[in-house]
Formats: sequence, structure tokens, C-alpha cells
Amino acid sequence: MQIHSTLLNNAVTELSKLPGVGKKTALRLVLHLIKKDKEDVEKLSASLSSMRNQIQFCNQCGNIADAEWCGICLNTHRQQNIICIVENIRDVIAIENTQQYNGTYHVLGGLISPLDGIGPDQLNISSLIRRVQKQEVGEIIFAISPTIQGDTTIFYIQKKIQSYNITTTTIARGIAFGGELEYADEMTLARSLRNRLPIHQLVNMP
Amino acid sequence: MQIHSTLLNNAVTELSKLPGVGKKTALRLVLHLIKKDKEDVEKLSASLSSMRNQIQFCNQCGNIADAEWCGICLNTHRQQNIICIVENIRDVIAIENTQQYNGTYHVLGGLISPLDGIGPDQLNISSLIRRVQKQEVGEIIFAISPTIQGDTTIFYIQKKIQSYNITTTTIARGIAFGGELEYADEMTLARSLRNRLPIHQLVNMP
Repeated sequence: MQIHSTLLNNAVTELSKLPGVGKKTALRLVLHLIKKDKEDVEKLSASLSSMRNQIQFCNQCGNIADAEWCGICLNTHRQQNIICIVENIRDVIAIENTQQYNGTYHVLGGLISPLDGIGPDQLNISSLIRRVQKQEVGEIIFAISPTIQGDTTIFYIQKKIQSYNITTTTIARGIAFGGELEYADEMTLARSLRNRLPIHQLVNMP
Repeated sequence: MQIHSTLLNNAVTELSKLPGVGKKTALRLVLHLIKKDKEDVEKLSASLSSMRNQIQFCNQCGNIADAEWCGICLNTHRQQNIICIVENIRDVIAIENTQQYNGTYHVLGGLISPLDGIGPDQLNISSLIRRVQKQEVGEIIFAISPTIQGDTTIFYIQKKIQSYNITTTTIARGIAFGGELEYADEMTLARSLRNRLPIHQLVNMP
């Protein structure tokens, strides 16, 4: 692209490094920013910079945090004795958006996947064991994608904590809301038959 | 969206102010930036900030510039006596990308559109007149979209400069490359018939 301005060119080059942003989109965004107030652009620029420089990972759960501990682990109104294990930060936000969960999290930072060279040591698992040893944990919920890697990770952690007398559960697997039976795979359909629910539980759903 | 981090929240809010970037996309971008090196994020942030703070508009043509004059107006290898009039900066970049033009530009910053309350005074037209008075201009090319507003603008400027003995042309209007005759509107088809070209001009095209 022929841009006769180093300033513009730099901004376009940097923006187009973002995933899903090509040169044309980057140029559109930069030309939009040129028309905005200087203060607005400064706010955007500063928010990105300070986000990256100051963000931390919670010492307890591995979630992103503004300080040493994240807001969820510090919140005394949440049930600190329930831990929901998730793969990454995006899953924390997804579960928080349901507004149905009031416990804490533990972010693994990935799943065990020998093919990709990811073993338990690369994940945030040892800190989970320490957490279980230190505090009284009543229930651990696995909110992990039902894939081979997900199930491997669940079984590994389950084995590590089985001596601690903790209730372990996993989020329900079954037909998604709005899904059609005929398109569901056999595994999902079989599981959802086996784990069928009394109708009154369905009616009580929010 | 439930994000328990002010830093993350600010970055997502600022990014989602960009056109075409929603909350979900902004979150995806920010989570991508968290994984990048601090220096990379700093470079992005600094490039946006310095672009907005230091960018100027060329004193002569209204194009974006790193200094008082833009690189095109300063370039002595370009034909400074040919001016291509365009609506905005994006059109300059589009024409530069063709690598077929070696003259200068004049960026109007819009088109005359009484319905939107945009008259000739809001546009970069008086500076064009000054330019025509000061320097010897051989040809003015109108590279303006063929719309009502575009044609109005062309006629207005044409009238203003008709006393200066300058060749004025407009970019060819006709069937676009790859376009199909049966789908072309009558106006375009009629014009392209009237302004038909000798075949050898087609063969000589790059």
C-alpha cells in the first residue's frame, strides 16, 4: 500500500499485526482516529499501554487481576470454598456473563495435550493442589470443553485431588438450547439420555 | 460483559469505540495483546498516539503529511503542474496504489451536498484557487465519484477555474473491469458508448 506518511504508515503497520485486522481495515481505523479528538486517541493509546504494563495474574487462581489477587478471589460475598476449573480467561468471562455462578475460579491456562507438547507441568495445576491443601474446598466444578484434551485434563486433576474428600462435578453435557436432536452426535445423545433430568428441574430454570 | 478488571475493562471499552469493533472483538484483541511482549504493545500504543499528535495536513494539497508539506507536493520527480482533485485521503491512497499517476493531488475533504449542509466554503476549494493563481497548472484531473454530489462539485470548481486556461479532464466512466454489460445501468452504458475508445488504446493498457 502506497502511504506517503511515516506516521500513518507506522500506525497502520502496528494495527494490522492484530489478529483479524488486515492492512485495509487498519487504514480505515487509522483514518477514523485522525478525525477524532486528540484526547480520545490518547485515552485509547494509554488504556492499551497501561493494561499491558500493569495487568497481573491472580496469585491464587491465575485469572487476570489489577493487583496481586483478582476481584473474584478477594470478594467475600462469593463462595470461596467452591472452585470452578476453566481452561482460560475467556471461559471465566463466559461463565460470569451467565450470572449463575457465585464461587471462585481456577484458570489452567490450557489443557493437557501431549501432541502439542503440553503436559501438566506447563499448566496452572500445582497451584490448584496447593490451594486444595491450604483451604477447605467443598466442591470443584470442571467447566472444561468436552474434548479428548479436556477429558484427559479432568481425569488427571481428578486423580491428583481424589484423596482430599472434595465433591467433584462437571458441567452438564447434553443437547444445547435450540439444538436439534437429529443433528446431535451419538455420543452427546447417548450421554444426555443416560443423564436425563426430572422435568421439574427444567421448569425451574431461569 | 462481566470483566472483573478495571484495566482490561478500560482497554475493551476504548477499543470497542472503533468502527466495526464490538465488545467481543475488542475483548479478543485485548486478550491477544496480553500474551504479546510489552514492547510490542508499547509500539502499537505509541504509534497511535504519535500519529494523532504529530500528523498534519499538507499546506498545499490538504493530504495528510508528516510536516507542513506532504511527500507528494515536495517530490520534485513528480509533475507538479498536474493536479488530481479527489474527495478524501483514501482516494489518494487508492490512486497511488495503481502506480499510474505521477502528478500531485488536491484533497477536497468532502463533496458539495446541500442536503447535508455542506457548501463550497466547508471544502478545501479556496486553497485550490490560490494554488491555480500562484503556480502554472497545466492540467486538472477530476477523480471524483460519479454521483450527484460529485458532479455538482466538479461543475462548481470547473466554473471557478475556467478563466485560467487549464485543461480539465475527468477519469473515464464506463464499464468496470470484469463487469457485465447486461447488469450495467443505462446511464453508464450510454456514456461508455458515446466515449468509445480505439481498440489500440485497450491493447496498450498495462
